[in-house]
Amino acid sequence: MSTTKRNSNRKASVLLETAATSVWTNVREQQREMKRNAVLQTAARLFIERGFHATSLDDVAARLNVSKPTLYYYVKNKEEILLQCVSQGLEMTLEGIDASRRAGGNAIDQLIACMRVYGRLVTQDFGMCLIRVGDEGLTSEGRDQLRKQKSSIDKEFRRLVAAGVEEGSLNPCDPKMTAFAIAGALSWIGRWYQSDGEYSGDEVVQHCIDTLMTGIVRRAG
Amino acid sequence: MSTTKRNSNRKASVLLETAATSVWTNVREQQREMKRNAVLQTAARLFIERGFHATSLDDVAARLNVSKPTLYYYVKNKEEILLQCVSQGLEMTLEGIDASRRAGGNAIDQLIACMRVYGRLVTQDFGMCLIRVGDEGLTSEGRDQLRKQKSSIDKEFRRLVAAGVEEGSLNPCDPKMTAFAIAGALSWIGRWYQSDGEYSGDEVVQHCIDTLMTGIVRRAG
Repeated sequence: MSTTKRNSNRKASVLLETAATSVWTNVREQQREMKRNAVLQTAARLFIERGFHATSLDDVAARLNVSKPTLYYYVKNKEEILLQCVSQGLEMTLEGIDASRRAGGNAIDQLIACMRVYGRLVTQDFGMCLIRVGDEGLTSEGRDQLRKQKSSIDKEFRRLVAAGVEEGSLNPCDPKMTAFAIAGALSWIGRWYQSDGEYSGDEVVQHCIDTLMTGIVRRAG
Repeated sequence: MSTTKRNSNRKASVLLETAATSVWTNVREQQREMKRNAVLQTAARLFIERGFHATSLDDVAARLNVSKPTLYYYVKNKEEILLQCVSQGLEMTLEGIDASRRAGGNAIDQLIACMRVYGRLVTQDFGMCLIRVGDEGLTSEGRDQLRKQKSSIDKEFRRLVAAGVEEGSLNPCDPKMTAFAIAGALSWIGRWYQSDGEYSGDEVVQHCIDTLMTGIVRRAG
């Protein structure tokens, strides 16, 4: 075998080994991520059912049927869990809002799309944590992070309301106050909604959007 | 002096004494009630500023410039304070709603009156406690009491929405879902409203009512 060929073979073998190691690492990381996500989901459910302060890491471990030390491999403490749940929920919402912005269209259609994305958040566990638990249990850094994410969502609602007034599809209004009314009516769903109730999350959100869009008062004609 | 006259004088004197004692007792009771109310108001403000769990009875005593034992003369513990704040707020709201019902008029006018009364609650300290603190810190009896009061308010909103649809002043709708959207948009004000902000509480509430009544979408014509 020529030196060139031997070198080339050696290189290929090193590459293969690296690829194999990397697959192994990826699989392990994916598994870790999945398990970490299971911890967050389970904790979020317990926070909703029992309240944040009344839930302990022991409760989370018990429901997952793992030991508490195992839990510590995935999360630092209860406060970190809450922050992760809530900020992941907000992050997904911001991505959804970005996607509907990229899709383009009239401001009114984009506004409705945003309302749906936000409505989906508050009818799911991470969003319900945001609404029901609040941020009292967080560190000031955690609170700052959430405040920034929430403010981005709020700004997007205001921008779309202002653009809708501009394009003539929405009633002239104070976009800040109107954005608060929209976010308020939708957010409150997260306070009372139960996934085993009479209506699906999508139905409740759609009803709320309809009420906000057309109003309650019947117009003549 | 005749026996009759003497008896009559004695009776008068006893009556005067009883009246005096009762004035004394009344004044004392009124003072106690005023002081107790000051404890509730101060605690409510601290719950809003710092959060319920982060506020101690020591903090309340310090702000009132009294000793903790003095505080215990008026309240049992932090949980009782929260329950008293929130249930007093709800009670006042129910009284306001009753008054507007007795005043009569169209369902739509009564509904707007109810929205104003509820809006006033959530822009005041006791109502903000209801919205921001929630009921996790309460005993199950306390939670039951609040649930009944909140349910009475909710029922009144539903009844008025249904009556408004019936009288033809409101759009046909599912009164339950519409009542949730109304209470949600108004309740959320209590989550972000600050009395030293750009708008007064009444302005914020009125804007929210207008948005809910006329809707966001501009209609042709």
